[in-house]
Amino acid sequence: MVSSLQIRAAQPADLPEILTLIRELASFEELEHQVVEDPDLLNEHLFGPQPYASVQIAEWDGTIAGYVLYFMTYSSFRKQPSLYLEDLFVRPRFRRQGIATALLQQLAAIATERQCGRVEWAVLDWNQRAIDFYEGLGAKLLPDWRICRLEGAAIGNFAGR
Amino acid sequence: MVSSLQIRAAQPADLPEILTLIRELASFEELEHQVVEDPDLLNEHLFGPQPYASVQIAEWDGTIAGYVLYFMTYSSFRKQPSLYLEDLFVRPRFRRQGIATALLQQLAAIATERQCGRVEWAVLDWNQRAIDFYEGLGAKLLPDWRICRLEGAAIGNFAGR
Repeated sequence: MVSSLQIRAAQPADLPEILTLIRELASFEELEHQVVEDPDLLNEHLFGPQPYASVQIAEWDGTIAGYVLYFMTYSSFRKQPSLYLEDLFVRPRFRRQGIATALLQQLAAIATERQCGRVEWAVLDWNQRAIDFYEGLGAKLLPDWRICRLEGAAIGNFAGR
Repeated sequence: MVSSLQIRAAQPADLPEILTLIRELASFEELEHQVVEDPDLLNEHLFGPQPYASVQIAEWDGTIAGYVLYFMTYSSFRKQPSLYLEDLFVRPRFRRQGIATALLQQLAAIATERQCGRVEWAVLDWNQRAIDFYEGLGAKLLPDWRICRLEGAAIGNFAGR
């Protein structure tokens, strides 16, 4: 039997699976403590009138094997949107079949269609296996940029200073 | 005379000044070669029916002194948007008056109103003066994340592999 891989846009009916996949990704990254469970909010943020993000699902022989979550950012220098990849996850038993590559190729096709100048994402600097994989796709690492974050109560504290 | 500072949302009439400010920022960062001149595209991307980004303008005694350009990103873990600061620039002759801080406070207020869990931006790791300033606001640096970028023709090459 030849296995079949299908990459498709997520639908509202996928919401329970998407919530599970997000939890599985967080668990893999040992960041479960950051995960807030809120199906209604996620539904609104993905499928509402003004969505913040979009999801593509990978199905292997009809079973959901992985996902990517992404959104558009913007380069004022290039006057073009960029596609930002926030989440990429393939369930352990589906790995080493090219599913992550297929999900990323789907994003590259969407980026081309939306006339994006860049596809961007973040990677942990000690995750050499991931870095090698990404560089193999033609991606470049920006080694001297750091992400700066104002989080939670620190936002309101600063706003009200 | 007491100088007055006003922070306000950019209007379509500000477009020529915004284009100039973006060029000045790129020149300051020695990245002029990355700047594409396209007023019509920028107009559509900031003021069209589906804008990619928003701009806040700082006026000092009625003269445009600086700007921030920002957009919403998304945290699937937190189920909340984040406010991402793409550009921050204050013209040299208006510096050391607290204008950058006022622009950032405006963004923190917008982030609070939009129920964002985070305000994020990128900083060069050798720019210790900027890092000290941001940490003084309550921001944290994420030292082990790197930005990965697939750019221009590399996107189409990978999509069509």
